[in-house]
Amino acid sequence: MADHPLATLVTAGSGGLAASHLPLLYYRAEGGHGVLRGHMARANPQWREVLPGSEALAIFGGPQHYISPNWYPSKQEHGKVVPTWNYVVVHAHGALSIRDEPEWLLENVRALSDVHESTSEAPWQVADAPPEFITNLLKAIVGVELTITRLEGKWKVSQNRPIPDRHGVIRGLESIASPEAAAMAALVKDAISDV
Amino acid sequence: MADHPLATLVTAGSGGLAASHLPLLYYRAEGGHGVLRGHMARANPQWREVLPGSEALAIFGGPQHYISPNWYPSKQEHGKVVPTWNYVVVHAHGALSIRDEPEWLLENVRALSDVHESTSEAPWQVADAPPEFITNLLKAIVGVELTITRLEGKWKVSQNRPIPDRHGVIRGLESIASPEAAAMAALVKDAISDV
Repeated sequence: MADHPLATLVTAGSGGLAASHLPLLYYRAEGGHGVLRGHMARANPQWREVLPGSEALAIFGGPQHYISPNWYPSKQEHGKVVPTWNYVVVHAHGALSIRDEPEWLLENVRALSDVHESTSEAPWQVADAPPEFITNLLKAIVGVELTITRLEGKWKVSQNRPIPDRHGVIRGLESIASPEAAAMAALVKDAISDV
Repeated sequence: MADHPLATLVTAGSGGLAASHLPLLYYRAEGGHGVLRGHMARANPQWREVLPGSEALAIFGGPQHYISPNWYPSKQEHGKVVPTWNYVVVHAHGALSIRDEPEWLLENVRALSDVHESTSEAPWQVADAPPEFITNLLKAIVGVELTITRLEGKWKVSQNRPIPDRHGVIRGLESIASPEAAAMAALVKDAISDV
């Protein structure tokens, strides 16, 4: 969640299913499974359409890639292989609260900036902007707080294949000159080291 | 949708909100806005928990990246800038049907393989596997068919910023040695050329 902070926040409200894409910060120490906090535009209809405390789902996505059965040595042996797709995701289920206290919102924009500017040589801070500009901006957003009741990681990195097939997947992915393939190859490799 | 085929399929069923990650194929010519087809494991509880014809949301995600206000020349002028996150997604809303006719499923696994093996020198085909293996495999999956009623693209590539800020974003992203940043830089550049 920290490495891939842009979450997909899904709710089922009066207008049907809705999803927004927003960076969420994870507060592990709060509640049983932690709390996610972020904000969206006040003009976004999603937050008005959900009942307070209703269920929400935040999805965080990591590397993913198509896996060809051609890469499995076991294809030559018995042919009983098919394509699949590897991916890593986290699903956080919980109750959604809408927050619009200015102090809460200010703390949220500060915390998000501090995290996402942390690798900058001269990190931008909320205090760099004129205070009245920030005050007006806070009026244009609402906070979202998801108190997690169920946290599921889905880790599909060829761990169901025999070790030779997993090495074949790594070779196959590494033969593709793409960063997505390289990221997935690294995860398949890590999972072998864990055995 | 073709470039980023691994969709997040979201439904609201008896067990609450559920999401699966599966490659979906878009059939543009069918229905008003087209149809999406794919399959999931029969063991996945999601398909049993939705009523036939109930609403579903398929989300396809493209490049995304944090955007620092430090990159905007307008920061030096007036300071009235804050961080944001750029992203490109497609939301396909529609009615979900569950399909489990063997012919439908075979056609779906064939079509998916043909698309995703198309760049291979020796594309794997369903016919490469023993027929009885495929027959058994089709019993272990169910098809999902989403007839699209609303198709929304969300394209957040700094197009709301003045042109100098957009060039600043491109420079900022290009200064980060990451493929995600490069992909977003290319989209911000494209959007300028479109003006």
